[in-house]
Amino acid sequence: MKLYFDFFSQPSRALYIFLKINKIPFEPCPVALQKGEHLTKEFKEKLTRFGKVPFIHDGDFKLAESVAIVRYAARKHDLDSKWYPKELRQQARVDEYLEWQHNNTRTFCALYFQKKWLVPMLTGEQPSPDRLKNLEKNLVQGLNEIENVWLANSPYLAGDQISVADIFGACEIEQPRIAGFDAAEGRPVLSAWLEKVRKETGPVYEEAHVSLNKLVQKTKEQASKAK
Amino acid sequence: MKLYFDFFSQPSRALYIFLKINKIPFEPCPVALQKGEHLTKEFKEKLTRFGKVPFIHDGDFKLAESVAIVRYAARKHDLDSKWYPKELRQQARVDEYLEWQHNNTRTFCALYFQKKWLVPMLTGEQPSPDRLKNLEKNLVQGLNEIENVWLANSPYLAGDQISVADIFGACEIEQPRIAGFDAAEGRPVLSAWLEKVRKETGPVYEEAHVSLNKLVQKTKEQASKAK
Repeated sequence: MKLYFDFFSQPSRALYIFLKINKIPFEPCPVALQKGEHLTKEFKEKLTRFGKVPFIHDGDFKLAESVAIVRYAARKHDLDSKWYPKELRQQARVDEYLEWQHNNTRTFCALYFQKKWLVPMLTGEQPSPDRLKNLEKNLVQGLNEIENVWLANSPYLAGDQISVADIFGACEIEQPRIAGFDAAEGRPVLSAWLEKVRKETGPVYEEAHVSLNKLVQKTKEQASKAK
Repeated sequence: MKLYFDFFSQPSRALYIFLKINKIPFEPCPVALQKGEHLTKEFKEKLTRFGKVPFIHDGDFKLAESVAIVRYAARKHDLDSKWYPKELRQQARVDEYLEWQHNNTRTFCALYFQKKWLVPMLTGEQPSPDRLKNLEKNLVQGLNEIENVWLANSPYLAGDQISVADIFGACEIEQPRIAGFDAAEGRPVLSAWLEKVRKETGPVYEEAHVSLNKLVQKTKEQASKAK
């Protein structure tokens, strides 16, 4: 199985970490989003009809969508780990978060990052103050829902055990840090959870976040210079 | 299993149709979104922490997120139908669409419907022409991707057989009709597909769309009066 990914893509990181931790073998095929490799006609024709990462090729089978790939890999390898449990209700809890996140954590963290940092970096165009205020409002609401609803009665997003839901959640929440927004600040529950996820996913989590953390450092340095 | 739903909600309709077609027994519990029933503190405390439909109660197990519920019901009842096939690659194809749709079909159809029809109806506030133009652009792009990518080489969204992916897709694509936007217009492939889905899901599809079709009719009458 070939995994096409870029560590700047949140679901790419999550999928990479999930596969590594569960010892599901794959050949890593990095794609340089920054170079626009994924936007060419050839890329779409030969590699993936959607022009996005992550995706896999498993022999002649091409599959996109990170969450669909998690499930495909788990079923193919008959996985039964805490990361994606087979037990009916436990798996449904993990699925519940993985479905919810698309229009919540994923959307809010990604939009804030894109409009505040990525688009200005690529085009020089800044978002209007109103637009930015709105994006931050949505981001704050979404993060508060993680703090006050998802983590209200359980230590992890899908219950008492860490799972792939936490990996996906954490990888999204890391992203706005590049744009100078720290989700952990003022959210003690989320903060403690994020630390646990980073720790329990070990060196592979760090590996997937090396490039991101360099950018976070750069943003911090620029902010302190501007003071 | 109790299903809480409202036929004005796209995923509610899709889930209802899926369960009925597959003869998965449930007790229907309608929720009146228009009355704001789902927004009370009591509703969130007793019924669902998210305050959205659809969701289920299966004994003491509460589960939200339509796609997670599809999978839970399929696994619980050991379902192996064309609607959600067990075969590894076929199921992954269905999953691929169900994951993709969240930030595509679902987002674009729902936002257009909400901003052009629902919000003005509830508050009297119209979207700005720029905002509306942008929403329509996204909707058109999304629908064109259904026409030109998803249905380019296969008669259904997940391949040669109809599946729950088509039910979810169709239920979303029906929604903007309330706001006077017909997705089938100018899209012969999508149009033929939509007709097939309506036909192959039979009377239960019609049942779930009775209220919607009344609103579509009303919008048409208002438009012809305005001419």
